Amino acid sequence: MKAETRKSEIIQTAAKLFKEKGYSAVTMRDIAAEMGIKAASLYNHITSKQEILKEIIISLAETFTLGLQDIQKSDSSSIKKLQDIVRLHVSIASQNTYEMASLNNDWMHLEEKLKYYLELRLNYEAEFRNIIAQGVKNNEIVNGNVEVMLFSILSTLRSLYLWIPKKEELNVENLSEQLSQVLINGINNKIN
Amino acid sequence: MKAETRKSEIIQTAAKLFKEKGYSAVTMRDIAAEMGIKAASLYNHITSKQEILKEIIISLAETFTLGLQDIQKSDSSSIKKLQDIVRLHVSIASQNTYEMASLNNDWMHLEEKLKYYLELRLNYEAEFRNIIAQGVKNNEIVNGNVEVMLFSILSTLRSLYLWIPKKEELNVENLSEQLSQVLINGINNKIN
Repeated sequence: MKAETRKSEIIQTAAKLFKEKGYSAVTMRDIAAEMGIKAASLYNHITSKQEILKEIIISLAETFTLGLQDIQKSDSSSIKKLQDIVRLHVSIASQNTYEMASLNNDWMHLEEKLKYYLELRLNYEAEFRNIIAQGVKNNEIVNGNVEVMLFSILSTLRSLYLWIPKKEELNVENLSEQLSQVLINGINNKIN
Repeated sequence: MKAETRKSEIIQTAAKLFKEKGYSAVTMRDIAAEMGIKAASLYNHITSKQEILKEIIISLAETFTLGLQDIQKSDSSSIKKLQDIVRLHVSIASQNTYEMASLNNDWMHLEEKLKYYLELRLNYEAEFRNIIAQGVKNNEIVNGNVEVMLFSILSTLRSLYLWIPKKEELNVENLSEQLSQVLINGINNKIN
């Protein structure tokens, strides 16, 4: 097995255990046991539980950041940008449910990368806010409270990993479209 | 100080510590220290950390359940019922931010009350789903995917406690109205 494959297998196993037992309760020994290997051979691939957490959270956070930057740079309308953000979240969450749980529940256990993670998170919210504010400015989005719109949409997107795996069959395109419909156009029939 | 007041002070202090350090990491000694009393005197009011957790989570969950039952029983339109559910969540979350964090993060640490909690939660989702499905049936709500509507709205309501305290001044009525607007009517100006 290639070193990179083994490393990514370690990370996936760890993310699953972090979700089930919580980061603090999981040991390197638990991760090795779950994989059916010796704890010592884990250390050929990874130096510590903290390194695993960093790999999980920072790489996901950077994936979101890069995705949002691409969307922001495009010359799409504000509504189309929001639809693209919804698709970005559905797509990442559907492929990384354990890792998303870790991102949501364990970020505070990051050590030297905590500050960097918090910066990525604040910048993400700021760019998202800008897209909404721009849409309000150009009359594509209703003239409402931008913070309420931002956190209402973002809360749903951040919680996606909690209910995505419950679906029997997941079609990313379908779910993205349905979710965009609900989040952007609302559910009130009188105005749709 | 009355026994009931002291008990509720213990519960509030514990909820704050659970949020800051995680349920597992908090000891009865920590709770006593935070209150400036002796650990022994905690036990005059409460038998264990588990009892505190139970008090926090079950009483909140029952408050939500009773609130939803009142709304469900009313003869309001489906849209009005959803607006009332939004107000219910804003109102409870704004008065119980630490307790809401515990409900969201620590419910899995419940012991003999875990099954009861999960029942309350499933029933809550089922009643909420019924209200949406009824609205679809009577054409008040768009004919979309009920599960997506349910979890999209519920995710935002369940995450409210995370951003409510960030607001300088909270007006429950205003926030409920703004949030209802976003969750029910959407943010797309073309259809509003």
